[in-house]
Amino acid sequence: MLAAIDMGSNSFHMVVARLVHGEIRTVEKMGEKVQLGAGLDPYNRLTEDVQQRALDCLSRFAQRLQGTPPEGVQIVGTNALRVARNAHDFIARAEEVLGYPVEVIAGREEARLIYLGVSHTLSDDTGKRLVIDIGGGSTEFIIGQRFEPLELESLHMGCVSFRNRYFPDGKITRRQMDKAITHAEQELQNIRQHYRSVGWQSAVGSSGSIKAIAHVLATLKITDGTINREGMEELRKRLVAMGNVDKLAELGVRQDRQSIFPAGFAILMAAFRSLDIQAMTFADGALREGLLYDIVGRIRHEDVRERTITALQERYHVDQAHGAMVEKTAIAAWKQVADQWGLRTTADEDVLRWACRLHEIGLTISHSQYHKHGAYLLRYSDLPGFSQPFQKDLATLVRGHRRKFSSAVFEDIEPEDKPRLTYLCILLRLAVLIQHPRNLEEPPAFTLHGHEKRLVIEFPEGWLDNRPLTLADLENEREYLARQDFSLEISGP
Amino acid sequence: MLAAIDMGSNSFHMVVARLVHGEIRTVEKMGEKVQLGAGLDPYNRLTEDVQQRALDCLSRFAQRLQGTPPEGVQIVGTNALRVARNAHDFIARAEEVLGYPVEVIAGREEARLIYLGVSHTLSDDTGKRLVIDIGGGSTEFIIGQRFEPLELESLHMGCVSFRNRYFPDGKITRRQMDKAITHAEQELQNIRQHYRSVGWQSAVGSSGSIKAIAHVLATLKITDGTINREGMEELRKRLVAMGNVDKLAELGVRQDRQSIFPAGFAILMAAFRSLDIQAMTFADGALREGLLYDIVGRIRHEDVRERTITALQERYHVDQAHGAMVEKTAIAAWKQVADQWGLRTTADEDVLRWACRLHEIGLTISHSQYHKHGAYLLRYSDLPGFSQPFQKDLATLVRGHRRKFSSAVFEDIEPEDKPRLTYLCILLRLAVLIQHPRNLEEPPAFTLHGHEKRLVIEFPEGWLDNRPLTLADLENEREYLARQDFSLEISGP
Repeated sequence: MLAAIDMGSNSFHMVVARLVHGEIRTVEKMGEKVQLGAGLDPYNRLTEDVQQRALDCLSRFAQRLQGTPPEGVQIVGTNALRVARNAHDFIARAEEVLGYPVEVIAGREEARLIYLGVSHTLSDDTGKRLVIDIGGGSTEFIIGQRFEPLELESLHMGCVSFRNRYFPDGKITRRQMDKAITHAEQELQNIRQHYRSVGWQSAVGSSGSIKAIAHVLATLKITDGTINREGMEELRKRLVAMGNVDKLAELGVRQDRQSIFPAGFAILMAAFRSLDIQAMTFADGALREGLLYDIVGRIRHEDVRERTITALQERYHVDQAHGAMVEKTAIAAWKQVADQWGLRTTADEDVLRWACRLHEIGLTISHSQYHKHGAYLLRYSDLPGFSQPFQKDLATLVRGHRRKFSSAVFEDIEPEDKPRLTYLCILLRLAVLIQHPRNLEEPPAFTLHGHEKRLVIEFPEGWLDNRPLTLADLENEREYLARQDFSLEISGP
Repeated sequence: MLAAIDMGSNSFHMVVARLVHGEIRTVEKMGEKVQLGAGLDPYNRLTEDVQQRALDCLSRFAQRLQGTPPEGVQIVGTNALRVARNAHDFIARAEEVLGYPVEVIAGREEARLIYLGVSHTLSDDTGKRLVIDIGGGSTEFIIGQRFEPLELESLHMGCVSFRNRYFPDGKITRRQMDKAITHAEQELQNIRQHYRSVGWQSAVGSSGSIKAIAHVLATLKITDGTINREGMEELRKRLVAMGNVDKLAELGVRQDRQSIFPAGFAILMAAFRSLDIQAMTFADGALREGLLYDIVGRIRHEDVRERTITALQERYHVDQAHGAMVEKTAIAAWKQVADQWGLRTTADEDVLRWACRLHEIGLTISHSQYHKHGAYLLRYSDLPGFSQPFQKDLATLVRGHRRKFSSAVFEDIEPEDKPRLTYLCILLRLAVLIQHPRNLEEPPAFTLHGHEKRLVIEFPEGWLDNRPLTLADLENEREYLARQDFSLEISGP
């Protein structure tokens, strides 16, 4: 069993599927218009009301999740949770209701997953495709070929945020419609020229907003359900003539979709104009389907994250051989203390491995303070396959891999994550220290014993004797850790 | 006339020269052991005592500087001013005494300039050279070929900081000497393997510390003045046998050099061991000579900074054609208002030009908040030819080039720099806005009038009429600037 939940700014979606001979067979789809994005107060905090509405929805989803193995589940939050200042508290409550971890993903990662979902529902032709997905808080624009995205962008405009700004009371006027379209065109200026030069053979739309527009075009007999340039211009006039969203009911637009319809329309109209789109078809399959394909990829060890790490190493000219030896050393240590320190999940091992491979990434910027530069790059880069909290963990380890082991390293970290990251960081530091001579030497056969505030490391007989620099490094390290009330005991037989 | 001052952590040096038919002829050299690095209190603040000592020295230098044209002068600070928390206040006082600007440079920039200075004093052979310069607060290691540096590193260890830590009372014991050497070897582990794999044909030392070691080796008849491995090991034993730095007087070591001699020796000993150096010669010419060659390069328009900017554009895949159009637009605006706003120096025009070319550099990291990522890269990268304050200005402009024009943009900026950077930032924003459609269109023939808190921009007749998006952008911009009490007036005839 596989399951994915997309906690969008407008709707929450769930899909449950079975993996049968390597194929995904959908078992059930559910969706609710939680309108999380509309529940942000002027200080960008989710109100208690909307949180309760969201948790109620999730408790219904949770029932269907029961018994699904953790590696088969992905639950993500998008724009509303990217911007909400109290997202952390809400996510803790959501995780309690769901019993599974929730990850907030960046806009470009959202775009990648959407393309993954949409491309699997389309015929396998070789031309380039433009995919547009209008969400509640952001709109994704992707150009891809077969299953590979070529361009990924996420712009800060969505049908919920535009509804609040341009159609708050349900009235549709010419003036407000023009303003909304112009605003969206301004956002699109950033990608217009580049997307047009890359080009595409077919355009596909994939969200509820676009589905509703196709539906209304057919109901009004403006087109046969195809979305084309003339149809859009005609619908714009009709919407203004209607004057109010409540008239949309007669056209078969569901009540919970009515208020955001003109906002979604304005964004799509701007896309047609800016990108000079002639016609577009609607495709089922979006973020939640993309999540399913991503889960299957990881299960099959086609982990997109491994590709991302390698790409980063190449882009920033990281010494890969050295990184591999640090990883080997760290994992040898990890195996001995993971149980003792209560570190067991694959995710903890993954973050340690990848931090080893990337710990020197900041050297491209400057040698001075390179651990900080590396942390910055890992925290803020668009990394395909990674969630934002995972990137934060990775950045924290790299930040803490050398020099003082101060509390500043963890200042940004939630208290419940601190012990776990402290242990991982100590393992990384130890591995970097042992590999400090950079001579690609195999790690020694050390023995580790981990206690709550103590680590005992025993080196093979004689190993330390002709390594005075490593001994000096270990002694420094003992002092650094002691300042955080952690005791490192070094012993030889 | 040309002049350069190196405000080092141990000594201040000045060199005055004449440029005769393109050749630099030294007129005068001066040096004083100010020991700025030793004047840092436990909170890394320069004491009033040492500031006074430094200012007294600079006032003597200042007399020799009088009348030298500003473009012929470079005055730089190194490690002590990189770490001093009150560096800004001290620099303001120094600039007042000198009448010329003072720039603090990063470690790798220091290494680049040292190599520039040393390489001009060596015979023009084709082999690779290792150059080591032991300063008061940092030691530079460079591998270069002819006039091109191939590897540049600056490590945080110097003869003043090591003296304070290992030889504070002038006693030289076996134990302290070994500790100092081991510490330096630990620092060298970071570059050891890589430097050895790059390799070199000759090793050259270039600082006062190394000169003194060569002198003592000759005086003691250990060698003929060559610094070699056996000689270094022998001198180590003799120094420990001496037991105190005051014995160095008999060997011709000047009094003000005695206390730091064993510290400089320990660093060089570690370099010989870690990098497996067999022999080294001393070369005159160092940072201050490098500064002279750098000035001449700029005067001859071989500005290393232009090369750096282009290299950055390539490394981070910046859209160079778009950057060039933004630059063209910004400079057309600059020419009209520079006088009105009191912006006249070449440096102001340079920072504007380069900010235009690099404003999108942060896109490599992520589209979201890319102005902040770009600012980070420009602030912290090692940029050959640039001083740290200049990088800060560049970063500030890029940080402020889009979105809200908030006071956060300037929070890090000294009050006296704020008006200048505000005006430059407004010009950059305007140029980016006009080039927002990214169609490489020539800038329109606008007319600008700059007032203290007001800018009037007049577009050619009809130009705005068929550019509703640019008009909308300008209206947004008017709002953004209004929040900073700056009024933007847009008019067409």
